[in-house]
Amino acid sequence: MSKLIIDELNNDIIIMAKNRANRPIDKDNTQNDIEVTTSYELKCPFCRGNERSIQTEKFKICDKSGWVVKSVNNKFPIINNFKEDIYGDHEVMIDTYRHDGNFFNMSEKEFINLLIMYRNRYIYLMNNEETKYISIFKNFLRKSGASLEHPHTQIISLSIIPPEIENELSISKSYYKKNNRCIYEDLIQKEIDNKKRIINNSEYFLTIIPRASKYSAEIRIIFKNKIRFDEINEDMIKQLAKVLKNMFIKIYNMNGYIPFNLYIHSSPLKEDCSKYFNTHIHIIPRNHNLGGFELSTGMYVTTINPEDLARNLKF
Amino acid sequence: MSKLIIDELNNDIIIMAKNRANRPIDKDNTQNDIEVTTSYELKCPFCRGNERSIQTEKFKICDKSGWVVKSVNNKFPIINNFKEDIYGDHEVMIDTYRHDGNFFNMSEKEFINLLIMYRNRYIYLMNNEETKYISIFKNFLRKSGASLEHPHTQIISLSIIPPEIENELSISKSYYKKNNRCIYEDLIQKEIDNKKRIINNSEYFLTIIPRASKYSAEIRIIFKNKIRFDEINEDMIKQLAKVLKNMFIKIYNMNGYIPFNLYIHSSPLKEDCSKYFNTHIHIIPRNHNLGGFELSTGMYVTTINPEDLARNLKF
Repeated sequence: MSKLIIDELNNDIIIMAKNRANRPIDKDNTQNDIEVTTSYELKCPFCRGNERSIQTEKFKICDKSGWVVKSVNNKFPIINNFKEDIYGDHEVMIDTYRHDGNFFNMSEKEFINLLIMYRNRYIYLMNNEETKYISIFKNFLRKSGASLEHPHTQIISLSIIPPEIENELSISKSYYKKNNRCIYEDLIQKEIDNKKRIINNSEYFLTIIPRASKYSAEIRIIFKNKIRFDEINEDMIKQLAKVLKNMFIKIYNMNGYIPFNLYIHSSPLKEDCSKYFNTHIHIIPRNHNLGGFELSTGMYVTTINPEDLARNLKF
Repeated sequence: MSKLIIDELNNDIIIMAKNRANRPIDKDNTQNDIEVTTSYELKCPFCRGNERSIQTEKFKICDKSGWVVKSVNNKFPIINNFKEDIYGDHEVMIDTYRHDGNFFNMSEKEFINLLIMYRNRYIYLMNNEETKYISIFKNFLRKSGASLEHPHTQIISLSIIPPEIENELSISKSYYKKNNRCIYEDLIQKEIDNKKRIINNSEYFLTIIPRASKYSAEIRIIFKNKIRFDEINEDMIKQLAKVLKNMFIKIYNMNGYIPFNLYIHSSPLKEDCSKYFNTHIHIIPRNHNLGGFELSTGMYVTTINPEDLARNLKF
């Protein structure tokens, strides 16, 4: 039996087809990537010690051993500031100086430094008057779109509000108009009452498997406070670091060294969305492939039961 | 320099960032799959001779050697007819009895049989009163979503019009209202005048690299006649078979044995869209990976120049 479910935050249409989980799959050669085990690579532009290959250093945090995280201009930006149709700055934030560092093995301290860097670069990029939106996103491994192995995150400022954000905002705005309530706050309450899709519930963050998502096995971290990402404080950073560390250990234990994307959806800069929008993080495992049905119809088939998955990832 | 371009048929937003084509990519382990070379596999449910493993045979074309194409019920349907939120029949059409047959090596005759089967199953599935739309799509190799190696195409009838089709229809409908002309006919004329993005121009079909597409290196085959897919006649089938055969040889010569999706967008069944919609086929190579920027923003970065690609695939 197939059930149609709607992702209430973006109106994506998902078909839950549990019986398809049993279909035969021949010659599965989609193995996980081989784990990187060298902490330094001579030719890697992001490794500590190879600074010559990097153009412009924009920010760094150091400890006694040297820099530990660092942000640099993207040498090959998606967009740039030669103001054409779309304007933006594009930096690459190096998650850790360790070539073999990754979200599956980073320490809490490393995650804290990473989040401090995220916030610092976000606030820096806000300075440009023409910036309407700032996007933070991470690609891990080739299948998720990463072109370099050394773990890194990207931040990009945009002179337009991207369609995916417009869509989330327009849905939460109309929900607010209709109910005089915030769809995110109601979702947080519903998920806490329901319990079954919760991975972790802490003071500042609720981590869940959404009831419906176009991407199989997506995880969402929803900020409980109605702040834009730049307003994240030290306490929250410490807590979010803990959540990320524990969650990625759980993901690794379940799936191994899998490709994933992580991205932060925060409010646009020139708009007060605090009444109807909560900052949230999407984490998308990329070991599943979208097929022709999805591309052709814009509907998404899943065989994953969110409650089962949440139970396996709970901490 | 980055340019913002809109895919006029579906309003997708594409960022053309040519400079990014030069960015370094380390350790490229994304090799093509190994080509299948055995024409028969003992354990394959779709190979000729292994009929016992198949539930319900719905259609076949035979020659002296036995069946050459065949359609069967999908044992693991995305949706089914236990009428819940969404209704549908789901068949698997076996492209050829040859386990190692594929779009890169199929003969014109094989493509003709395939297209006759597509049309036959389309017309058959139209019989159900509740069917609003019929989707034909193909996944080739695991990365494109295929779960079985033996080449096959899927056809599914739907009790709703899928969002991707609704989107294309609403754009072409408003274009028609505004200009009293069909966006597809205007596009065909513009592309013929421009010449540079044409791969092939035949009596019934125009094959182009679209000026903008969210998927890198997409190819589109646009029907010149304003017919729904079931109305394709023998002459058109012969010509389309020739187009597919020649085009996939070109794709193979350029890229090798790559994963791809192919899907047909035709009109919904209960609506006369002939004034503003042309049936068309999308072919999406899946050797490119969408990254976190795309997933996060709903904007799509490409580094591919459609004119260069069209020149390479021209026949």
